[in-house]
Amino acid sequence: MEKFFSVADIDNLDLVVQEALSLKANPYSWRELGKNKTLGLVFLNPSLRTRLSTQKAAMSLGMDVMVINMDKEGWALETKDGVIMNGTTVEHIREAAAVMGEYCDILGLRSFPSLKDKVADYTEELFNKFVKFCGVPVVSLESATRHPLQSLTDLITIMEYKKMARPKVVLAWAPHVKALPQAVPNSFSEWMCKAQEQGLVDFTIAHPTGYELNDEFTAGARIVGDLDDALTAADFIYVKNWSSYHDYGQVHPVEGDWLMTNNKLALTNDAKVMHCLPVRRDLELSSEILDGPNSLVVKEAGNRVWAAQVVLKRMLESLKK
Amino acid sequence: MEKFFSVADIDNLDLVVQEALSLKANPYSWRELGKNKTLGLVFLNPSLRTRLSTQKAAMSLGMDVMVINMDKEGWALETKDGVIMNGTTVEHIREAAAVMGEYCDILGLRSFPSLKDKVADYTEELFNKFVKFCGVPVVSLESATRHPLQSLTDLITIMEYKKMARPKVVLAWAPHVKALPQAVPNSFSEWMCKAQEQGLVDFTIAHPTGYELNDEFTAGARIVGDLDDALTAADFIYVKNWSSYHDYGQVHPVEGDWLMTNNKLALTNDAKVMHCLPVRRDLELSSEILDGPNSLVVKEAGNRVWAAQVVLKRMLESLKK
Amino acid sequence: MEKFFSVADIDNLDLVVQEALSLKANPYSWRELGKNKTLGLVFLNPSLRTRLSTQKAAMSLGMDVMVINMDKEGWALETKDGVIMNGTTVEHIREAAAVMGEYCDILGLRSFPSLKDKVADYTEELFNKFVKFCGVPVVSLESATRHPLQSLTDLITIMEYKKMARPKVVLAWAPHVKALPQAVPNSFSEWMCKAQEQGLVDFTIAHPTGYELNDEFTAGARIVGDLDDALTAADFIYVKNWSSYHDYGQVHPVEGDWLMTNNKLALTNDAKVMHCLPVRRDLELSSEILDGPNSLVVKEAGNRVWAAQVVLKRMLESLKK
Repeated sequence: MEKFFSVADIDNLDLVVQEALSLKANPYSWRELGKNKTLGLVFLNPSLRTRLSTQKAAMSLGMDVMVINMDKEGWALETKDGVIMNGTTVEHIREAAAVMGEYCDILGLRSFPSLKDKVADYTEELFNKFVKFCGVPVVSLESATRHPLQSLTDLITIMEYKKMARPKVVLAWAPHVKALPQAVPNSFSEWMCKAQEQGLVDFTIAHPTGYELNDEFTAGARIVGDLDDALTAADFIYVKNWSSYHDYGQVHPVEGDWLMTNNKLALTNDAKVMHCLPVRRDLELSSEILDGPNSLVVKEAGNRVWAAQVVLKRMLESLKK
Repeated sequence: MEKFFSVADIDNLDLVVQEALSLKANPYSWRELGKNKTLGLVFLNPSLRTRLSTQKAAMSLGMDVMVINMDKEGWALETKDGVIMNGTTVEHIREAAAVMGEYCDILGLRSFPSLKDKVADYTEELFNKFVKFCGVPVVSLESATRHPLQSLTDLITIMEYKKMARPKVVLAWAPHVKALPQAVPNSFSEWMCKAQEQGLVDFTIAHPTGYELNDEFTAGARIVGDLDDALTAADFIYVKNWSSYHDYGQVHPVEGDWLMTNNKLALTNDAKVMHCLPVRRDLELSSEILDGPNSLVVKEAGNRVWAAQVVLKRMLESLKK
Repeated sequence: MEKFFSVADIDNLDLVVQEALSLKANPYSWRELGKNKTLGLVFLNPSLRTRLSTQKAAMSLGMDVMVINMDKEGWALETKDGVIMNGTTVEHIREAAAVMGEYCDILGLRSFPSLKDKVADYTEELFNKFVKFCGVPVVSLESATRHPLQSLTDLITIMEYKKMARPKVVLAWAPHVKALPQAVPNSFSEWMCKAQEQGLVDFTIAHPTGYELNDEFTAGARIVGDLDDALTAADFIYVKNWSSYHDYGQVHPVEGDWLMTNNKLALTNDAKVMHCLPVRRDLELSSEILDGPNSLVVKEAGNRVWAAQVVLKRMLESLKK
């Protein structure tokens, strides 16, 4: 595997899930695979789960790991080409990426979208330049439009906790006070659409008017504006806020109550509730759910390790060839 | 050992000191014990000694170590229950702690007191929630009211450098320009009081009026307001500033000269001088002492490694069971 | 090797280059040498290349590595002696250095100059105090007046890519918008002057009037004010901005065009172009050169690993004695 950026980088979803779960059962059985290999984790934004779970996965594979908070410990990056660098940016991504590629066998990059420049964000300008110039395999630690380690984790979690062959999975928009990226819902949606194609799930999206996702990510999903309708007989609910894609990065007032509560849970097939975290309690998701028996959010976060580990393992195996 | 938070977590003080000193003599003889075990060090505040000595101790035990500056690299934490999270805090400690517990076999947490909310600080609200929700053994890297790795270090240092069976140890308040927590003096005091009970030391506290510690930490200590009286025949002087406990977090003007100098040292039994560091030179403790033969402060800081290593070793042994 | 601070710490330059290149050929053949040894990397300023390449070198030698951003994660340092510490600095370098020496077998320190206090900068006050008080071997990760790991890297790169016995090397001043230290050009110059003495290169410096370096670093170099003259028949061009030494830390307007471009490259013997990075594109060095076949900047940055590794290897060998 040369890159882990989207669901397109994985052919057989069931297979990768089974491999991840076998790593969960035997985390340290591949300590030799990563020996004398270095992973560099580059953060342009904050991170808790991704930072720790990816480090842990790499160490369990025997890799050496280096973490850099580029924004705080390194130099302010220039990403545009053709500019005379006489301003506040100190280093161009062409050099920064290439240099990090000299030091690492595999790199991970986290870079949030601007939410201001839709074209730059949706062409994944920064991530793609990093991949192009660093010259080594790159794992996305969340880019402008996708968060694939999260989505793989989510699929692993659904497969681990499902009680039937083809569970009903609902992505449910939820309120927030800030304008958040579409990366997590985009990514979850493209993974679930492919999982649906491969017969693993049945996938529905519910959101208020004005919060339509880019349809490149939702092909095949049932999309509804009525949350109660979506939740009926659901087996898994994935709660998540996002800002508007069409009116890019904006937050619109919505009608109706989109906070996920036990009342809404009653409509479901005793659904398990998921969220990528961090979650705003009692704004996106009620405390009663988070502290109750239906919440999977902590176990889901725990599964981040196995998603990272299976991706790194496949990349290491490619390097060996 | 499930938790290392206070002196109550250690029964026999002499035994733990001997075990620490045997690790000092053979630091790398337990490299296999921590294999495939991960320590997560979580900092909500700055740290030099604790950060480096605990990392080193864990690596010497063969552990994988991850460090996170939660305030800078992760998300702003909410610690109160029952609040709608529509403000500036991004993640609740319930989720953050639980998630870190998924990634680590043992966690360490540093969280200073507010010095504003006495009840929250002295009930150790944040630390206790972290312990409750993370679900794995936790080492305090200094909490609101205690700094047990420092106090264990101090006991190790006293036992290592004592010239008689039951040395006289004096905790001496010293001036400062900032309002500092009571964590170090509270903790030192509760460790020395227990050490006195177990026949290891003779313990006296000297402080100006208005700087009485919470008597929960000082039971059994001789407490005096006259520094010269306290210093007479002292074998060890532990210099430290703290703010008022009763007039919580306040700094009062004091009478008399509480800066520790060679003149005061002349009253003692050629006492060794200790401080947890960082120390304000010539405000708390004179340069002549710090640079002279009676100072133990650097060797004391060096011993932080063995305090951390014996605690982690005992926790790892508990995990193995 | 007790210290790696300047070219004076290496006797035979050809020998150290050959040793570095043999590590490049077999990076992991010394994994046992650093076992149970700890490297501490202390940063008072930002760093990308130095941070990652030195970590990687140490891990490849089997060392445990700890990194601390002293300015952000630790305490504000006092460096002057004889001051009553009642201001904003929290810890004196005497204690901080000594304590870190307790935890580490080898330390690295990065500390940029003030560019305001020429005497303090050029006597290397901070670096020398750190060395004196920490009590263990210290590697400079760039100090006020020198960047020896960079210069060793540069020499390795020249020796690796040279096409003749004694290539012509030119240090060429370039424009910038900020006042930069003289550390890189000072250091490059003293290494090239020694390399010239040892018959390895032929060394020329070109800079505008007002940008004369301290002649302690340039003895033996040919120094010219005409860039075209310097570039004639050059085999390697080392492009770098620096602020004025004599009018300390100032930036003067210059006459003529000092931006390095393909037009200027045409004057050379198809010279390879080097830069320590980060580089301001199209201000110091043109994009056409950086993206073209003559640029060595990325390979040069990659060689930072082998410079660090040979230095750490020699220090570890000294420890063993």
